Amino acid sequence: MIVVMQAHAPESEVEAVIDRLTELGFDVHRSTGVDHTVLGAVGRTPCDPRALEILPGVRQVVRVSEPYKLASRTFRPQDTVIEVQGLKLGGPEVVVIAGPCSVESPDQIQTAAKIVRQAGCRALRGGAFKPRTSPYSFQGLGEEALRWLRRAADREELLVVTEVMDTSQITTVAKYADILQVGARNMQNYALLKELGKLNKPVLLKRGLAGTIEELLMSAEYLLAGGNYQVILCERGIRTFETAARNTLDLCAIPIVHKLSHLPILADPSHGTGLRDKVAPMARAAVAAGADGLLIEVHPEPEKAVSDGVQSLLPEDLFALMEQLKIIATAVGRRLA
Amino acid sequence: MIVVMQAHAPESEVEAVIDRLTELGFDVHRSTGVDHTVLGAVGRTPCDPRALEILPGVRQVVRVSEPYKLASRTFRPQDTVIEVQGLKLGGPEVVVIAGPCSVESPDQIQTAAKIVRQAGCRALRGGAFKPRTSPYSFQGLGEEALRWLRRAADREELLVVTEVMDTSQITTVAKYADILQVGARNMQNYALLKELGKLNKPVLLKRGLAGTIEELLMSAEYLLAGGNYQVILCERGIRTFETAARNTLDLCAIPIVHKLSHLPILADPSHGTGLRDKVAPMARAAVAAGADGLLIEVHPEPEKAVSDGVQSLLPEDLFALMEQLKIIATAVGRRLA
Amino acid sequence: MIVVMQAHAPESEVEAVIDRLTELGFDVHRSTGVDHTVLGAVGRTPCDPRALEILPGVRQVVRVSEPYKLASRTFRPQDTVIEVQGLKLGGPEVVVIAGPCSVESPDQIQTAAKIVRQAGCRALRGGAFKPRTSPYSFQGLGEEALRWLRRAADREELLVVTEVMDTSQITTVAKYADILQVGARNMQNYALLKELGKLNKPVLLKRGLAGTIEELLMSAEYLLAGGNYQVILCERGIRTFETAARNTLDLCAIPIVHKLSHLPILADPSHGTGLRDKVAPMARAAVAAGADGLLIEVHPEPEKAVSDGVQSLLPEDLFALMEQLKIIATAVGRRLA
Amino acid sequence: MIVVMQAHAPESEVEAVIDRLTELGFDVHRSTGVDHTVLGAVGRTPCDPRALEILPGVRQVVRVSEPYKLASRTFRPQDTVIEVQGLKLGGPEVVVIAGPCSVESPDQIQTAAKIVRQAGCRALRGGAFKPRTSPYSFQGLGEEALRWLRRAADREELLVVTEVMDTSQITTVAKYADILQVGARNMQNYALLKELGKLNKPVLLKRGLAGTIEELLMSAEYLLAGGNYQVILCERGIRTFETAARNTLDLCAIPIVHKLSHLPILADPSHGTGLRDKVAPMARAAVAAGADGLLIEVHPEPEKAVSDGVQSLLPEDLFALMEQLKIIATAVGRRLA
Repeated sequence: MIVVMQAHAPESEVEAVIDRLTELGFDVHRSTGVDHTVLGAVGRTPCDPRALEILPGVRQVVRVSEPYKLASRTFRPQDTVIEVQGLKLGGPEVVVIAGPCSVESPDQIQTAAKIVRQAGCRALRGGAFKPRTSPYSFQGLGEEALRWLRRAADREELLVVTEVMDTSQITTVAKYADILQVGARNMQNYALLKELGKLNKPVLLKRGLAGTIEELLMSAEYLLAGGNYQVILCERGIRTFETAARNTLDLCAIPIVHKLSHLPILADPSHGTGLRDKVAPMARAAVAAGADGLLIEVHPEPEKAVSDGVQSLLPEDLFALMEQLKIIATAVGRRLA
Repeated sequence: MIVVMQAHAPESEVEAVIDRLTELGFDVHRSTGVDHTVLGAVGRTPCDPRALEILPGVRQVVRVSEPYKLASRTFRPQDTVIEVQGLKLGGPEVVVIAGPCSVESPDQIQTAAKIVRQAGCRALRGGAFKPRTSPYSFQGLGEEALRWLRRAADREELLVVTEVMDTSQITTVAKYADILQVGARNMQNYALLKELGKLNKPVLLKRGLAGTIEELLMSAEYLLAGGNYQVILCERGIRTFETAARNTLDLCAIPIVHKLSHLPILADPSHGTGLRDKVAPMARAAVAAGADGLLIEVHPEPEKAVSDGVQSLLPEDLFALMEQLKIIATAVGRRLA
Repeated sequence: MIVVMQAHAPESEVEAVIDRLTELGFDVHRSTGVDHTVLGAVGRTPCDPRALEILPGVRQVVRVSEPYKLASRTFRPQDTVIEVQGLKLGGPEVVVIAGPCSVESPDQIQTAAKIVRQAGCRALRGGAFKPRTSPYSFQGLGEEALRWLRRAADREELLVVTEVMDTSQITTVAKYADILQVGARNMQNYALLKELGKLNKPVLLKRGLAGTIEELLMSAEYLLAGGNYQVILCERGIRTFETAARNTLDLCAIPIVHKLSHLPILADPSHGTGLRDKVAPMARAAVAAGADGLLIEVHPEPEKAVSDGVQSLLPEDLFALMEQLKIIATAVGRRLA
Repeated sequence: MIVVMQAHAPESEVEAVIDRLTELGFDVHRSTGVDHTVLGAVGRTPCDPRALEILPGVRQVVRVSEPYKLASRTFRPQDTVIEVQGLKLGGPEVVVIAGPCSVESPDQIQTAAKIVRQAGCRALRGGAFKPRTSPYSFQGLGEEALRWLRRAADREELLVVTEVMDTSQITTVAKYADILQVGARNMQNYALLKELGKLNKPVLLKRGLAGTIEELLMSAEYLLAGGNYQVILCERGIRTFETAARNTLDLCAIPIVHKLSHLPILADPSHGTGLRDKVAPMARAAVAAGADGLLIEVHPEPEKAVSDGVQSLLPEDLFALMEQLKIIATAVGRRLA
């Protein structure tokens, strides 16, 4: 923590700040300049910088350590590789997870699973509990859909990735899923994160629409601090002034997360763009930027999908995309899983 | 719903769209222009516009009705006035709710309650369950804090407003609170909204950092659709590129909500700015813009607050502010409650 | 300037940074902590912090002084009051400048001037050179419109405020205007700012759609550094994700600018909202927040306006608003000019 | 143009709108629904939708045609390929333009040109007129720098790309440059765009920090409408709430522009990220997303650069990046120029 005093702050104010820092358990180093006195506070006490900014005579407080610990690369310099049933996320392989937005029927999800497998993907996504902006929209088919999803995935030897929306759903979802997804709207649902921190299953944590990269890592910290080290991050678009696409996919978050943290990070070009014909370009771009994997919506018949058909790839789009991704992966020294 | 076809779309595509709209239960009116064919789809079926945008030959789909029904002024033209223990929100009176960010001790909340009463406010706020970005920050004292809060409020004849973060906390919080607050991070926690929709107590719903006004009203719709008509909205700042204040308080949301909806709307200048010396100007501005009330943080000793002291008013600040608000209220034909 | 070294940066890197800072003319104070070494660089040399961030072993560089000098309150603690023909901006009086978006005809501007005077305003606005998003939109009537504007203002004893878009227009505009306006799109048109810095007339500088408050003050610094101290700032809305209004009027910029700078700041609720029925609420809010004045669009017949009629007040709206503003001004210890 | 009337708008209001549309030169088709009357206005008159929104009884106005004409793919379905001295932009080849932020000395730019050529790039960038946030920062060396830049480029057989900031600089810059760049801050400097529209040289138009894709195309329309068809667009990052990188590079703008317009579009990962180690990942991503080229900062000795050294690649970084780009270009059916 570094505290910069206001220009010409009186000695009494400087001393009051030093006393407060000492009380809080810091060692204080003082540096007196022409205009400004600067205090370096050394220690490991967690402390809200704003609690110091409020003291008389203080101009600015700068935090030196990252607010997250377990999620930081300082804490763990080597990449975290998460192994789920033999599939490794965060290693040299790029993992593509695909499937429909919602699980709609046993047939639909079975057909989707076949396409996903045929494309060479290793995991199947599909929603049973759907967070929808309108209470009048399709809300998902619940546990029955999870059963269909599991069965379809098993037949095609795929992993299951599906969303959990509330603490009350964790037990049910964990029964069927290999990886539990926390959606963008729940990135800061701390009650949910705390419970998932106690779970012994990987969690895929999506960045919220207004979530900074630092906040995404802080939310991951909730999971890690709870004891669950199997955390996979996912960039899925942020909200900006541009409305030509549904969201602005912030692909620079990928190299930034890789520098700050040891956790793997995927990209979701389907939600990140909301437009089918933008999914393949952004999927290619994500892998070129270093993503550890992708989350992609594909539907056997998008025009009949009950949700998000407009952003779902057609099966043939997915096949063509996988061929392009193979080439791009080699450019960054990787290969598709 | 209005469907604009692409320039020179072939007749077969136009007819396919008409068939689909008819299937969905709409009456279709066709208007053929020089370049574009336009289809007006009349009916009351809920329908995601993007499900039509995906059809071949479609250029643009425009929704005519608002996606929310019960929250709209079309549904209910007159203002909703919510009466809680004799206090009316949404009527001619401007209601100021004040108190500390967190309930810290019986003494602290009792002293705060006295200040709040002395200032002429009618309701006491204070957090027992705190949503914090860091798992290492103070998380609130839970039910014990609720008991202290209730007792302090009762002694000073104030209402209690406090936050509920998860479905599992509703019963406990409802035991002590007169108004249950849904925080900005939970604006789209639909599991929570659905449960609160079944409750017979007023809910104060805060706008999320990335929540549009339309989405705020859609979240209110979850509560209304569940049967709970006692919904109070609150503007508390959105996230933009400007970092000089913690958030950007979007005061224009107040007249916009008043035009679109019959629900009352408050402003929270404490979270909306994050800076003590900006709270009073923004509180005054909110009342001048037509807010039905304010949510303000005040702390007996802000520099000792365990959370958000930097944005809490000093008692004397609150007293001075209330005097200014009395004058401003008259300029907009209202009075302080 | 404070330089924080990376945890456990080797001594050689620390010394290289000290050498560089010394070369740049700084006195360096070193503070060695458990994890981090911190260097305080004292001096008045201008220096881009990123030029230090690039050095090996550097983790973070924090600028202590504001990047602007002449615009800062540290440089000039008392408020700047700009006097134009007897009208004082930045003092205890709140100044309302009103008029149509564009000057359209001698009659239109004369009628508008009468309304503006009748409402009790002191200055007339109106555009002769119009920055328009489309090359096919009305671009303004140029010098002829300036002549009409001047004549109308003179008859009603009003000041003239009008926009200048390019260095080539300065001489012409300065011939007719009392205050030259730099529009939002030109906030960072440095060639224009440099030329206006040499002028002996007040400049009204509008905040850009993506301009931070710091950048607004840096653009003011261009004018001040050129020798023109008659600078008036104006908040007119920033671009955010919210689309319910045309822009998001950031009223908190008013108290923030008042704290950081001695320059007066106005608000423009017409461009800030883009919607006629939101202008009065936001105008009231701006004065309640401490604005030194307002810039408001009014048109004798808004539905016939060639530009921005939808955000122009009707004459009777302006009269009613002025009455409300009189009351609100007293609440903040001011009066209308 | 489609005009949706308010629910149950009286016949007199509907007729007044029809009359107005007819006056404006539109053919009107009426469609009367249960709740809403919808008017389809067919014609080619340019018209601000807000001028209709203001009429009594109107609820919503929807523009059907794009506001830009010459820039749209409807106007010109095939890609525009701009040929400059044998180099083709917008065709199958991906063009990399590289060089330092500022031209600093004859030696610096000569060394830079050698590196750029050696890396296999075809054009040299470098600034002589620099738009800087602070009036105290290095402002560029002007015409002398342009001479050095031209000479260095000629020796290495490279094209010259450099920025023009004001109408008064066009003649000078055009004397030395093959392609004139309009910077992000000037995207809506219409006086400048109008003058460049008369020029017979290619213009590289950068997207502004708050510029929507539609506005970028509207600014291009100013150039095209003036008669200059040699327009190259460039995505260089927009301003959002995320501060981990300097800007948010919106790569989805690339496929979106390709769909809406026939003009070529480049990406600038240097300004788009502001961080050297993020430049290569974002450069790769841009090519994977379909960019027609890149604008990259490289400096022989970045730590000594007078501006933007922190985002400039080292020579060896550029060489390595070009190898990766070669592979990625093949994945999207292209090759490096």
